[in-house]
Amino acid sequence: RNQATVVLRENGKTREKTLTMGTLNPQVKAVEYAVRGPIVTKAGDIERGLQQGQKHPFTEVIKANIGDSHAMGQKPITFLRQVVALCSFPELLDSSSFPEDAKQRARRILQGCGGQSLGSYSASQGVDCIRQDVAVYIEQRDKGVPADWDNIYLTTGASDGIVSILKMLVSGQGRSRSGVMIPIPQYPLYSAAISEMEAVQINYYLDEDNCWALDINELHRAYQAAKEHCHPRVICIINPGNPTGQVQSKKCIEEVLHFAYEENLFVMSDEVYQDNVYSPDCQFHSFKKVLYEMGPEYFNTVELASFHSTSKGYSGECGFRGGYMEVLNLDLEVKAQLVKLLSIRLCPPVSGQAAMDVIVNPPLPHEPSYLQFHKEKSAVLGALAEKAQMTEQILNTVPGIKCNPVQGAMYAFPRIFIPPRAVEAAMSLGMSPDMMYCLRLLEETGICLVPGSGFGQREGTYHFRMTILPTTEKLKVLLEKLRDFHIKFLKEYAPLEEPKRSEDDTQEALKQFR
Amino acid sequence: RNQATVVLRENGKTREKTLTMGTLNPQVKAVEYAVRGPIVTKAGDIERGLQQGQKHPFTEVIKANIGDSHAMGQKPITFLRQVVALCSFPELLDSSSFPEDAKQRARRILQGCGGQSLGSYSASQGVDCIRQDVAVYIEQRDKGVPADWDNIYLTTGASDGIVSILKMLVSGQGRSRSGVMIPIPQYPLYSAAISEMEAVQINYYLDEDNCWALDINELHRAYQAAKEHCHPRVICIINPGNPTGQVQSKKCIEEVLHFAYEENLFVMSDEVYQDNVYSPDCQFHSFKKVLYEMGPEYFNTVELASFHSTSKGYSGECGFRGGYMEVLNLDLEVKAQLVKLLSIRLCPPVSGQAAMDVIVNPPLPHEPSYLQFHKEKSAVLGALAEKAQMTEQILNTVPGIKCNPVQGAMYAFPRIFIPPRAVEAAMSLGMSPDMMYCLRLLEETGICLVPGSGFGQREGTYHFRMTILPTTEKLKVLLEKLRDFHIKFLKEYAPLEEPKRSEDDTQEALKQFR
Repeated sequence: RNQATVVLRENGKTREKTLTMGTLNPQVKAVEYAVRGPIVTKAGDIERGLQQGQKHPFTEVIKANIGDSHAMGQKPITFLRQVVALCSFPELLDSSSFPEDAKQRARRILQGCGGQSLGSYSASQGVDCIRQDVAVYIEQRDKGVPADWDNIYLTTGASDGIVSILKMLVSGQGRSRSGVMIPIPQYPLYSAAISEMEAVQINYYLDEDNCWALDINELHRAYQAAKEHCHPRVICIINPGNPTGQVQSKKCIEEVLHFAYEENLFVMSDEVYQDNVYSPDCQFHSFKKVLYEMGPEYFNTVELASFHSTSKGYSGECGFRGGYMEVLNLDLEVKAQLVKLLSIRLCPPVSGQAAMDVIVNPPLPHEPSYLQFHKEKSAVLGALAEKAQMTEQILNTVPGIKCNPVQGAMYAFPRIFIPPRAVEAAMSLGMSPDMMYCLRLLEETGICLVPGSGFGQREGTYHFRMTILPTTEKLKVLLEKLRDFHIKFLKEYAPLEEPKRSEDDTQEALKQFR
Repeated sequence: RNQATVVLRENGKTREKTLTMGTLNPQVKAVEYAVRGPIVTKAGDIERGLQQGQKHPFTEVIKANIGDSHAMGQKPITFLRQVVALCSFPELLDSSSFPEDAKQRARRILQGCGGQSLGSYSASQGVDCIRQDVAVYIEQRDKGVPADWDNIYLTTGASDGIVSILKMLVSGQGRSRSGVMIPIPQYPLYSAAISEMEAVQINYYLDEDNCWALDINELHRAYQAAKEHCHPRVICIINPGNPTGQVQSKKCIEEVLHFAYEENLFVMSDEVYQDNVYSPDCQFHSFKKVLYEMGPEYFNTVELASFHSTSKGYSGECGFRGGYMEVLNLDLEVKAQLVKLLSIRLCPPVSGQAAMDVIVNPPLPHEPSYLQFHKEKSAVLGALAEKAQMTEQILNTVPGIKCNPVQGAMYAFPRIFIPPRAVEAAMSLGMSPDMMYCLRLLEETGICLVPGSGFGQREGTYHFRMTILPTTEKLKVLLEKLRDFHIKFLKEYAPLEEPKRSEDDTQEALKQFR
């Protein structure tokens, strides 16, 4: 393969490559996406090396970098897969080995598809009957708050919907360029999309000392500061939080919505973890329901897009790339423009739409698949709740690590103490300190995490994001290795400091999960 | 639902919507996508009206606007659906009702998936073993020209790949802004993406009088003219042609590649119709194979991206959103940037990747599914070939319609004579003449086509695009209704002109397809 940028031709002249780092779209160059960044590439290399017999101080790579449940061993929900298989190969509708409720779902979905085939394009907004099921689901979730299926758009995962809505909202030049308020720490899809669209990123910091809560005063601060150099038009919220795992209180959501109402902001609420709430003190409140309860002056005016996905929750079906968004109070002409924009990618994958349908329309108590479905769902959510608690507790026994409760979502985002000498060492390598930390962790233990700098953090603080998805057994191994690594790291870079907690604390804390 | 842009608040103040036609991203506003444009929206409205008992001069809408095979009644390829169903619900691997070769494919795909589940994210470039299968397929297709699976990227349909590559290539400002050469007529994904990215569209006109051939002199003309105001960096070719249905000769491809080589252009060859060649005089030549045969100076330097898809060919699996691209001679650093860009959308739908795998790795002659697969494939391609011929022949019996041979792809793009008085009538309605034509056709006959203006055409000429996908019976009805409409239209707007052909000609031509 030829890799030179300038090629010497036979006639003695040179020919340059058309696409080089010099000519590449600068907006593409500016994009960063840590969840699949250099650490993850390195982990893949190490994994291949291990398979080829290379020696490392460990025998397997444990990937806790991405919310990819099935890759970490979670089993699919049987009912969902039955419905998708029936839709994919309708001859199975005659098979006696599939339950009647799965067949009924599959028949309904196929009725909604052109030529009754999953192989037809759907309408750009998605299959009608699936959008109707989504609306019914939302009404039930929100205890009767009306949902209009005309406002539902099926998407290719939540990411596709988020990028589409952001794309609509970016306009203006210079001081009137659209500003997008995002939490810090954030999920890097937001910063990547903002950077690619050359919008202005407005950071509002979550309150780490207060369990990563969203502080309304911080919103005001960020908004006022940004108004000087851009036109703030959108506020993004991730609830439950990614990477921070907090669950927002109803009062806090009210404050955000009131703020958005007053400041004419479009609200984007990323609610893909709505089924992932573990802490008994917390409850998921949808932005839409809270908006409704604030009264018609709010409910009929605030422009709100809420996003959901097949990838998270209890099903963890990332590979199907299913999702939906509900968009409220969109101007009618703008809505036609959104549909036009979506139509260019023709339609979301129809099998992903089918998977989404099962999630919003699961077996009912009187149906034959209910018991098994309920058992599988509870097992997944129960295990996640246990692992959320375990992760927090064990991490908090390690000297120099401080972890907020993992109230929801699938991640811990602990703060790590990195000694000044380690910070200097990283700087001299041209690397952020938490990147160096995660790289060494990977090289020495095989554990793959994402440095906090990929999500954003307050200057001078360091974190990593880890998923709670490995099996309980593997998660214990991960946490013990992580503790050993961290202590070794501290000893290396701050040999004179006394650790405040001992190894015994960790072992003690681990006992309750045995 | 509230649709007003300005809302009167209870306190007497007004609140404006954040997202209005005034504040909408102007790049989004500028985008046009005729394949799902106003005619298609209207067809949907009429269809719903018919279902609700509304009266129209017809009883069904015939949609010939989009290459959506299954929606027009084409049956899925059994083997493909078996493999997808097995991957979706692996318990079926124990079922005796699935053939061994389908199971073997499914096992291999699942082995390549994290946690052996279709529900895991794949790598951003796609599942390794599927990329390997794609490379083997390309080598066989191109009679041994080497293919490296490292150059293969699985995509969400071909559209996703095309947009990603274009995005990389857009840079510069003013006279150095990237120019993208596209055929006219073109598939409107190209113009939509160019407009959204604010690149410069450079039109090169296909030669309608010469069966829509690509004329190298026209390429030179377009390039030289564009150089005055932008930096031409890319040439896009669609072969077989969409909407024009021509198949490019090897000589013509050589000329294009030589031109791209000389002018430092990145070549994007849209080859999604590579299996759809009907004319016995034509053969599909891949750009890659031709490049290889031009010798190493070309093969090792010209940057070439070729696109394929599950949506077309004989499988017509649009809904799965599967596809791949092969990218040659990409600079190594740029390649890392491409992978980063793709990683933001995480991965293409894995079930679509599985469908793509079957298309590149179909049953072999010694395998149990071979006979049925071969029969199904031949039936689809045979019917398409017959319908291609029928469409051309019947259309050419209609006075005022002239249709080039449908050598490949799935479309006819006939030229229609629109009398000057009809042109004036359309202009007074603020409508392009072919839009008025297609709108009246839809309203009077229920036939849904796309006006030529949505694809681009030489000034003063008018066309429409129609697919050849309706069943033979329905296509005959469509063609007869279209002829009657066209004659009526001519009589209305040019009552004194004598038609050159009679209705008898059409009936005569139809006979051979009975």
